[in-house]
Amino acid sequence: MDDRVREHAEVLVDWSARIEDGENVVCVASEGTHDLAVAVARAVGERGANLVTLSGSAEIERAHLLGYGEHAGIDENDESDRSDENEGDGAAEDVEFAEDPAHELALYRNADSVLVLGGGRNSAALADVPAATRQAASRARTGVREARMATDWVSTVHPTRALAQQAGMSYEAYQEFVYDAVLRDWEELAEEMARVKQVLDDGSQVRITNEGTDLTISIADRRAVNSAASVAYDSHNLPSGEVFTAPAATEGRVRFDLPMTIRGRRVRDARLEFEDGEVVDWEARAGERVLREVIETDAGARRLGELGIGMNRGITQLTDNVLFDEKLSRTIHLALGRAYDACLPDSETGTDSAVHVDLVTDMRGDSELLVDGEALQRHGYFRWEEGFEGRSDE
Amino acid sequence: MDDRVREHAEVLVDWSARIEDGENVVCVASEGTHDLAVAVARAVGERGANLVTLSGSAEIERAHLLGYGEHAGIDENDESDRSDENEGDGAAEDVEFAEDPAHELALYRNADSVLVLGGGRNSAALADVPAATRQAASRARTGVREARMATDWVSTVHPTRALAQQAGMSYEAYQEFVYDAVLRDWEELAEEMARVKQVLDDGSQVRITNEGTDLTISIADRRAVNSAASVAYDSHNLPSGEVFTAPAATEGRVRFDLPMTIRGRRVRDARLEFEDGEVVDWEARAGERVLREVIETDAGARRLGELGIGMNRGITQLTDNVLFDEKLSRTIHLALGRAYDACLPDSETGTDSAVHVDLVTDMRGDSELLVDGEALQRHGYFRWEEGFEGRSDE
Repeated sequence: MDDRVREHAEVLVDWSARIEDGENVVCVASEGTHDLAVAVARAVGERGANLVTLSGSAEIERAHLLGYGEHAGIDENDESDRSDENEGDGAAEDVEFAEDPAHELALYRNADSVLVLGGGRNSAALADVPAATRQAASRARTGVREARMATDWVSTVHPTRALAQQAGMSYEAYQEFVYDAVLRDWEELAEEMARVKQVLDDGSQVRITNEGTDLTISIADRRAVNSAASVAYDSHNLPSGEVFTAPAATEGRVRFDLPMTIRGRRVRDARLEFEDGEVVDWEARAGERVLREVIETDAGARRLGELGIGMNRGITQLTDNVLFDEKLSRTIHLALGRAYDACLPDSETGTDSAVHVDLVTDMRGDSELLVDGEALQRHGYFRWEEGFEGRSDE
Repeated sequence: MDDRVREHAEVLVDWSARIEDGENVVCVASEGTHDLAVAVARAVGERGANLVTLSGSAEIERAHLLGYGEHAGIDENDESDRSDENEGDGAAEDVEFAEDPAHELALYRNADSVLVLGGGRNSAALADVPAATRQAASRARTGVREARMATDWVSTVHPTRALAQQAGMSYEAYQEFVYDAVLRDWEELAEEMARVKQVLDDGSQVRITNEGTDLTISIADRRAVNSAASVAYDSHNLPSGEVFTAPAATEGRVRFDLPMTIRGRRVRDARLEFEDGEVVDWEARAGERVLREVIETDAGARRLGELGIGMNRGITQLTDNVLFDEKLSRTIHLALGRAYDACLPDSETGTDSAVHVDLVTDMRGDSELLVDGEALQRHGYFRWEEGFEGRSDE
């Protein structure tokens, strides 16, 4: 076995999930992640913890969803997501699946940790599951989801050929990319990110300037999250490597020069203008229609739910996977829609939107990030980094 | 997908496990069985049942066992199965694993059906797990096992290349073999087997004569099981196709001319002699040592726990897999060791031995199986079959 797979498993089990003697662990292994699942099983065993490994096969999930949808009267070939039986009397939203299967619920309620190994053999495996089926299944499993989220859960990614393809990379190069992002000195990064968190927690206003960007964001009363890829930091993704908070108010304009795939469509060079916290104007060189769809989802989708600062120096290129892209070092990302409750005062909740869509901007040029008027970052370098004083070197 | 895979899934879900609307199903899919797991998921969904799919990967199990064993102080390289730490003060049997993980127990306690898809990619995948680790793990999971056995569980086999190799067959030929055994008219076979069960239930003594065999077995007060591959018949394997009961007393000698693999060693032409229900003499042309090991395990291992009559006419050759071999039509098998409680009077239990080892004898020659002096089978043909009156035709 590739040593890196073993190291990945150790980081996941020890740093991220903090698994200890006697704990009950669930591992969800998608297709193509068997090597990592074996290494995780070894590490979990060595810690004296119990293990149940679930199949996370998207093809098995699809088959069950299609079968169950058919049983419930959803026509899988009907693109309008209305079944024949429901015709006339309403949309497929009326279809309900049985709620929270008792055996699955009991499994998660008795679990201490859940490790999700993403990867898969085809990132489009669920593409033909009707939206009505997905929605009904999702609504029916709220309790299961909550039970899962109540554990020390961590989601990670095994470098599969399917993800390499999505990134437009060879398998070998993609493996190197993923392990560079995952196998880091997390303790050291967590310490550096703590400095950024401190500045944001102490500050009340952020101003970002860049080519096409001059944005002012109020962060008074907000708490930043030091997302250090560990449940000990309220951070549930491996890799992570970002500090993020929730904007309270936003004014100005921002340009996102890094391309993103949103709902299967490519968005390039998106520009947003904010007044009184809300998007009042937008444009994009490509994907303007999907951008409009996002913004017009609901009132919450016109506001910013997240300001994040990418700090994973192992991530040096875009791979069309937001979990990596948003952690790209020397970038900033903003999300339209939902905020994370962890960033908000106890009286507020961030769930006032159905969407959370991240957009990323490159800070390596003539840019600045100021907190209460003082520069925290210039050209994408923090004030404790060498590049901060000089001009952009890239 | 191969239509036979879909049909296999339908037989498993409908005939074998009798899965219905709203039930909670656990499917355990070993490596190499993904196609069948997808077809099972579809069928389970179509019946309106909920599904949790577990990984049944032997490599994941091995890794967790080795890790856990190491944590508990079992040295995986120590062939004596004693750990360094335990040296001097006792055997590795003293090592105990944590009992019945709560999450796994809760999963099975809330399940209605468990479908086990065997197959795998390497039938020797667990070969280097120390016996002490296996034993400790097995002891620690008694509750999980009981919870699983309390469901409508069914175990089946997907034709993998590993199993084809074990059978000494090409992949394509092995697939045909498995589907011939699985895709049968089970209803019709169940009816025929009911006739055999009736004769055994009404009878009190079985006599088997064959080349090298003249054995008398008392079956008074015993109930036969019509093993028709369905939970509705107390039969938990697909394929099945045998009628079996538990001998009460045995006298005489028996020769097993069909080779079997027992504990990894080949046994050929085994002969046993019984007096007063117990083996008093034995020999074998090959594998006599392992035969001795089995017989000397405990007192129960010297007695017969099962008399079975193979009746699956889709199984026409040996494949070095006892689940198939013992159902070979026109054969009889006897097992040393444990009996099935379902065959015994309520006051008795068959668990007085740690072993249950099947040996198979070919009845196609000049043989007879008599119940209370009346022939039930001649040359391997039942009295309602054409071949019964004539001589052996093969």
